[in-house]
Amino acid sequence: MSVELYFFQPLGTNSGRVYLALLEKGVDFTRRELNGREFDHLQPEYLAINPKGQVPTLVHDGRAFPEGMIANEYIDEAFEGPPLRPADPTERWRMRTMCRWAENDLGRALMMIMWNRVVPGFARGEGRSEDEIEKILARVPDPARRRSWLKAWKQETRPELLEESHRRAREGAQRIDYHLERHEWVAGNCYSLADIDLMCFCGFMFRFMPELANEQDTPHWAEWNERMEARPAVRQLRAESVFPSPPPKPEGGDA
Amino acid sequence: MSVELYFFQPLGTNSGRVYLALLEKGVDFTRRELNGREFDHLQPEYLAINPKGQVPTLVHDGRAFPEGMIANEYIDEAFEGPPLRPADPTERWRMRTMCRWAENDLGRALMMIMWNRVVPGFARGEGRSEDEIEKILARVPDPARRRSWLKAWKQETRPELLEESHRRAREGAQRIDYHLERHEWVAGNCYSLADIDLMCFCGFMFRFMPELANEQDTPHWAEWNERMEARPAVRQLRAESVFPSPPPKPEGGDA
Repeated sequence: MSVELYFFQPLGTNSGRVYLALLEKGVDFTRRELNGREFDHLQPEYLAINPKGQVPTLVHDGRAFPEGMIANEYIDEAFEGPPLRPADPTERWRMRTMCRWAENDLGRALMMIMWNRVVPGFARGEGRSEDEIEKILARVPDPARRRSWLKAWKQETRPELLEESHRRAREGAQRIDYHLERHEWVAGNCYSLADIDLMCFCGFMFRFMPELANEQDTPHWAEWNERMEARPAVRQLRAESVFPSPPPKPEGGDA
Repeated sequence: MSVELYFFQPLGTNSGRVYLALLEKGVDFTRRELNGREFDHLQPEYLAINPKGQVPTLVHDGRAFPEGMIANEYIDEAFEGPPLRPADPTERWRMRTMCRWAENDLGRALMMIMWNRVVPGFARGEGRSEDEIEKILARVPDPARRRSWLKAWKQETRPELLEESHRRAREGAQRIDYHLERHEWVAGNCYSLADIDLMCFCGFMFRFMPELANEQDTPHWAEWNERMEARPAVRQLRAESVFPSPPPKPEGGDA
C-alpha cells in the first residue's frame, strides 16, 4: 500500500485538514511538500497529478484524491484506525453541516480577508517583478480561482464585499462559541472530521484576529482549543509544521 | 415518525434531489410545496424553519435538515430502504466527487445561464412593479444569493462570466458523456446519490440546451437517461411534477 500527500504546509487550511486526518487515523504516508511561495502547485509535474493545481492531493495506490472534505471521508472509509465520523446519523449530519460551513461560509470569508492581507507580499516573494507575477497567476487553471488571486494581488476586492466578510467573521466567531458551549465536540459527543475542519479553517483567528477570538469573548472555543491541543495527532501536526505553536494564551506565551 | 419535505416542485434542482432520494428510499413523507413565483420561501413562516430561505428543507421528527447533499447522505443513513451509496470506498469517493461537481461546478454554470433567462419573467410574475420586485429580492437573507438574484433580474451579469459558464456547460456535457461511456452509473457499478444529482442538476440540458445534450453528441448520457427513466421512483417523480416529461427523443415526442 502506498499513500502520499501533496501539501503546502502541515498546518495550512486545506492541506492541514487532510494531513491531520491521516495522522489521527494512524496512516503511514509519504510527505510531498510543495513550496507555495515558488508556486510549485502550478508546475506541470503537479498539474499532471491535480489538473486544478490545488492542494492537497492524496494519492493512494496511484490514484489521486483531491478535494479535502471528500478525501477525508474517503480516508475514514478506506483505512483502518479510529473512526473520525460519529455513528449516529444526526451527529454525522451535524458533522457534515459544520464541515461545509467552516470551509465554505466562514472559511471563504476568512480566506478573502487573509488573502487580501498576504497575497501581495506572497506573490512578490524575494523580488519578482509585476510582470512575472501576472504571468504566474495567469497559469492558475480555474478561472474563478484565478480571479480571486488577481483581485487579492491587485487589491481590487470591492470594499463592501470585504466588509461583508468581516461581518461573517465576527458572527462566525460568536456562532462557534455558542455551538461549543452546547457540544463537547463539533459534531456532538464524538471527535470527528468537523473538529479537524474547525481547527484548520478557523483556528488561526486566535492568532490573526484576536479581537474576535480570544479567551474572554469566545471562552468555550478556547476550552475546545485546549482539548484539541492535548491530542497526540495535533501535537504531531504542530511538531511537523513551520507554525508549531498553538493559539496564544492570555498569560503571555507565543503570540 | 414524521417526515416532511418543503420544496418548490418535485423536479427542481435542489428540491428534486431530496424528493427523489426519499422516493428511492421508500420513505413516506408529507409534501409541503412552496410557490416560488409567490416567493413563499421568503415568508416568515418558512424562514422560521430555514433561516436562509432556501429550498428544500427536510424535517424529520421536528428537526430541520437543509442543504441538499448533506440531507441526502442523512436520508441514506437514517432510513430503511435500498442503499443509495456504494459500499466500496473508491466508488463512494467518486459519488461524492460527482455530486459536488454536478452541484457546484457545472450546476452553478447552468444556474447562471438559466437564471439570466428566466428570472426577469419569473420576478415580474403576473404584473409586479419594479419597486415591488426590488423589495421582494431585498428580503433574500444571504447577501451572495441576493446579489445573484439582483444581477439576473437586472441582467447585469458580466458577459465574460456568462461566456465562461457557457464554456463550462459545453465542456461539462462532453465530460458527462465521457464518464458515462466508462461507467454504467455515475459512481461506477451502483446507482447512487450521484445519479440523482446528475439528473436533477444537469438533466434539463436535453430540453433547454439541446445543442449541447442530445442523442447524437452525448449518446452515452442519453442511454443513461433511459435507464433512469425506467426506475419506478423516477416515474413517480415525473408523475408528481408539473414537468412530467422525460428528456425529448429525436423521433419526436414531447419537446
